[in-house]
This record gives sequence, C-alpha cells and structure tokens, in this order.
Amino acid sequence: MALTADLTAAGLVREELPRETGRAGRPSLVVRPESARVYVFALDVGVDRLVAARVGLGGTILDRRETVRRRGAFSLEEIVGPLASFARQMHRKTRPDTVCVGVAAAFSGGVARGDGVVRFGPNMGAVDVPFADEMARRLAFGLPVMVGNDANLAALAEHTRGVGVGCRDLVYLHGDVGIGGGVIVNGQLLGGYGGFGGEVGHMVVNPKGRSCGCGSLGCLEAEVGERALLESAGLFGSGVGRDAVRAVVDAADRGDIGAQAALSRVGDWLGLGVANLVNIFNPEMVVFGGMLREIYLGSAAQVRSRLAVDALPTCRDTLRLRTSALGDDATLVGAAELAFAQVLADPIEVLARAGS
Amino acid sequence: MALTADLTAAGLVREELPRETGRAGRPSLVVRPESARVYVFALDVGVDRLVAARVGLGGTILDRRETVRRRGAFSLEEIVGPLASFARQMHRKTRPDTVCVGVAAAFSGGVARGDGVVRFGPNMGAVDVPFADEMARRLAFGLPVMVGNDANLAALAEHTRGVGVGCRDLVYLHGDVGIGGGVIVNGQLLGGYGGFGGEVGHMVVNPKGRSCGCGSLGCLEAEVGERALLESAGLFGSGVGRDAVRAVVDAADRGDIGAQAALSRVGDWLGLGVANLVNIFNPEMVVFGGMLREIYLGSAAQVRSRLAVDALPTCRDTLRLRTSALGDDATLVGAAELAFAQVLADPIEVLARAGS
Repeated sequence: MALTADLTAAGLVREELPRETGRAGRPSLVVRPESARVYVFALDVGVDRLVAARVGLGGTILDRRETVRRRGAFSLEEIVGPLASFARQMHRKTRPDTVCVGVAAAFSGGVARGDGVVRFGPNMGAVDVPFADEMARRLAFGLPVMVGNDANLAALAEHTRGVGVGCRDLVYLHGDVGIGGGVIVNGQLLGGYGGFGGEVGHMVVNPKGRSCGCGSLGCLEAEVGERALLESAGLFGSGVGRDAVRAVVDAADRGDIGAQAALSRVGDWLGLGVANLVNIFNPEMVVFGGMLREIYLGSAAQVRSRLAVDALPTCRDTLRLRTSALGDDATLVGAAELAFAQVLADPIEVLARAGS
Repeated sequence: MALTADLTAAGLVREELPRETGRAGRPSLVVRPESARVYVFALDVGVDRLVAARVGLGGTILDRRETVRRRGAFSLEEIVGPLASFARQMHRKTRPDTVCVGVAAAFSGGVARGDGVVRFGPNMGAVDVPFADEMARRLAFGLPVMVGNDANLAALAEHTRGVGVGCRDLVYLHGDVGIGGGVIVNGQLLGGYGGFGGEVGHMVVNPKGRSCGCGSLGCLEAEVGERALLESAGLFGSGVGRDAVRAVVDAADRGDIGAQAALSRVGDWLGLGVANLVNIFNPEMVVFGGMLREIYLGSAAQVRSRLAVDALPTCRDTLRLRTSALGDDATLVGAAELAFAQVLADPIEVLARAGS
C-alpha cells in the first residue's frame, strides 16, 4: 500500500471504486493508471509500411510517425531502426511528467506466444526473427516489447473499440498482400495451443488452385490476396500495394470489364472462404479489414452469392458483414491494447518499473 | 439454508469444503449432489441408432438400452417413443431412494441454443423439430430435456473424460453418416452466436466436388462421409451404416485394391479438411470419433501426407492426432455432462425440484 501511495503521489495512478461489484459490503478501491500521464508505444510492421504511434488509454493516438517499407529481402535492421528512431523522436516531444508504460507491436507474420519471435511471415520473408528482443534493445526504454500477429491484434481492436463492440463471436479478415485473420470466440481472442490460431488465410479453398507462399496450393490468401487480384486484372508488375488494389476497384467502378472480372473471381473465392468460416464459427459478424475492405466493397455481390449457396441457413441468417471501423489504424490500436493489457493486469508492478 | 438441511437430510446433497479457494479465511461450505443417489438420463439420437442410458456422476453408465433406427422419412414419434419407453423401463428398476435429476440428449443435427429445437439434420431429414419439448412431455418426469448437437457433446465428453483431458484447444471430428464437429477453444466448447458453431462438415474442401445434403458442393461431409466412401469403393447400395464402413476398411486391410483406393481418396480430403482446421485453430489435438475412427485408422498415411503439405509448420509441429477414447459412448457421455452441468450449476434448485 505504501507503493500505491507513492505512485498516487507521483500522479501515475489513482484509486477509484470498481465499476461493478458482485459482492455486498464496501468494495475495495482499485488502482488504475492515470490516463493523462501514461501512454504506450504501439508499432505496426506491415509488408509495405512501418508505423509507430504514441497512444493513450482508450486508444487515442497522441502522436504518430510512418514510413514506407521496401519489399525485398528481409532485414530486421531496416525494421527496428526506423521504428526505434520514430519512438525516440516522439518520446523527446512528451512533457517531462508523462511516462511510457509499455510497448507492443503488430507484425505481419506468425508470432509465438510468450517470446515475441516471429516464426514465419511469408509475405515479408521473415523466418524465426527475434523481433521483440531486438526491438527492446534498440528502444532502450527498459521495457519489454510485446508482439502479436497483426490480424489478431486488429481483430482485438475492432472487438474492443471498432465495429465489433458488443459482439462476442466475430471473425476478422485482414488483407495486407496476404490474408490474415483474428477470431473472437465467446469474447476472447482465439489463440490456439502455440498462439498461432486464426491463420484463416491458409485455409485451402481451391485444392487445384494457385501456389501459395506457404508451399500449399489454393489457400484463401493465394486466391484472394493482392497478387491474385492484380494478375487476374492483368496488372501484375505495373505496381503493387494498396494503391494498386484500389486502382483495380476504381477501374471496375468505372466499368472496366477486365477489372470487374478480376474482382468477381476474387470475390467468389473470398465468399467461399467466408462461408466456410461462418459454418465453422457461427459468428455474429464478419469484418473485412486492411486491403480486404476495398476488395469486399468491390465484390460484395459475389461474396453474398457464395454465402447463399455454401453457408448453412442457421449460421447465415443472423450474420452481419461489415468493414473495419478503425481502418488502417486497426493493427496499431490493437498493439496499444496489447501494451495496455499488461498495465491493467498489474498496474502497480508496471508503473513502479516505468516510474523508476 | 433450511432447504439445504432438508436436502441433506433426504440424502440428496452433502456439504463439503470447496476444492480450492483463492481467499484467505474460513471457506464457505459448498453443496454437491450425493453421487450414489442421483443420476441423469442421457439420450443419443443418431442416424442409425437410438440409445438411452442412466448415468451417474463422473460419467458412469449405470444402465443402458439401445435400438436400431430405420433410415427414411423423419418421424419424431419413432424417436421419442422408444427413448421414453427405455427411460421408464430403467427408471422402474432403480431403488426407491435414488433420484433422476436431469435429462439431456445428443442429436445428430443443428440445435438452437436454449429452446432444444433441432433446426436441421440433413442426414435424418429433420427440420425445425421441437424435440426437447416433445421428449419432456413423453417422459413426464417433470424435468426439462436439454439438447445438444451430438458432435459438440462428444467433443465435450472427450475433453472432460476422454482422450482430450488436459487439452485446452482441441478439434473433434465425428462421423455418423455425415461429418460433425465440436471445437474446444481455450477450454470452452465453441458455440457461436446461435449455438450452431463447429459445423466443420460443411466446410467446402472441393468446390467442384460431390453434392452435399446441405445444398452445396464438395463439403467435407460430401467427400468423406459414409456415402462417399461406399460409392468410391463401388459398394453403395449393398449395405449402409457403421458395418458397411468397417467392411471397406477390413477389405483394404486384406489387400482389396478398390477399397484401398476408396480409403485413399477419402483420406486425402479428410487430411485437407484437418489441415484447414489446424491452420484455423492451432489445436493441441485433433480427435477422430464415431465412424471417422475407422476411416482415419484406414487412411492415416493420406491424412498425414496432406498435413505435411497443407498445414503450417507452426501449427503442425505440436499437433497430436488421436482416435476417440470413449468410442460409441462419447455422444452419450457428453449428453450426461450436459445434464449434470445444470445440476452442478444450481444443485439446490434442481434437487429440490427433483426431490419434490
């Protein structure tokens, strides 16, 4: 209790009544971080971009830096260097009485629970990358770096602060060159045994289909990802990334028949994948995020046609299809949630360390 | 407390110390059903069989009756009639001081959470069948009848008392003409928004494949179910059911090339479906139950080959493939768990009603 008093005097925590209590009698005070004084750094490692943001309690982005990441051979230095530099720039601009209490990153790849090692990231060329340790070393804030799969964290963000607030069963699909996923089951993020759960992009939908970066054929990612769309539209090689995807959707809107056919083809596979997930999870909502927002909006008719055939009526009738409310910030907001989750679980421990 | 004393005096409950307590101080006594005096009726409605059993705490089957169900047009009377008759026969044989505290059924179909209506059961021809209400009326025990999907309840049974004890993330696949599923995510049964979660048999694995009873093409059930195996083996029409499936597996063991080819084909699709589920759920264990025990044991090489290609190494490396430990009783034991779950949640309420 002496520690709590010290932290309260330092303005880092406040004691307040709990929001709800199931027990009779006088409730115990709970310790909460002082919202105006504490923040976290949220990092986002996407295939084409690196983002660092300073985020307050409640998911408010207080400051932000972003740069383009070049595709090509994977280099850990080319990721941690810019992100550490951004964080230090933003840190220097903060008032002396504010405190960074956590750092977390969303990474476009499969992240092992616990150690923050990126086990695979086929669209970035990442294999067994010790990202968390190297990022923490380069930041030198004396804080560990939590790391999660980008689609998992975006799902968490949409569930907590986005379009899925109040949904206890939600499937989130994230497009960033490939297709990732995050699934909320009965209010909790599906992690699986090793933390790799939710890799819906590597569900095979077309067993004789296109080659996938994972070594298989016809994965949802191979049939619906950026490359499949651009190749179908005859545009592969003339540009990559979100702008190239938007260009196809815009061309289809203007009546371009090739672009319409490409979107129709991709939307058909997307619909089949969504139908499978709807039958497996019986979710209340499916959310399309990242690049899949554009693809879904350009192919919603095909997606719905497939659902009409392939989804069970019991699972389809109550389903809502939505696009991400947090947009390109979903992964970043999810990373901030991950960083704050640790603080909220043990505010005295974390804040004492941060304040020391 | 007067009610507890009455029930204790009647021998229906006992008060004991809780198994664990997180709090300091003298723990409160908890009320538990008296194991030797209380039992539940567990019912199993499969495509080819109807089973009723009297089950004690801990899943012990105390008495049991089974009959063959004829395939053909769905008749609710032909299900509830024999089951009610079995339960009354077993009830009459019990000692006067024992008490039935619950009834639950496993049904081969999709069951809505809460109302016990079977919304669909394509392999039984069931649509919107008010099974729970009719079963309760015919039993006339003054108890409600809880109903769950058979594969969901078998998954729960394997997780609680079978091969999956201690696994917090488990995928159970159940073969009974079609293919059902039950998924344990972080120790809890995946129910989904309406209770229809886990319909992995209606995941499309072969989009240009065989017609499925659900109206789609190439569902796991259509490619791996009883009909697919028997047709591939050239045996469709010469017998159905578990015995016909076993005959194919036995023939393959004896070197019959047609049977081997059929199992290989079916095992290939089964492996693809399992790989998809492994990537989606990252389970610790996949369990093959019902008819799929035989099919898996006869095609394990194909299943493993597919996993080697289509499952992500991060999800595959820690995976265990197992057959059901509870065998043909898994659905029944799961139904008993469902019935007891209600008693354990509120023993005083349930036992006071049962004892009155």
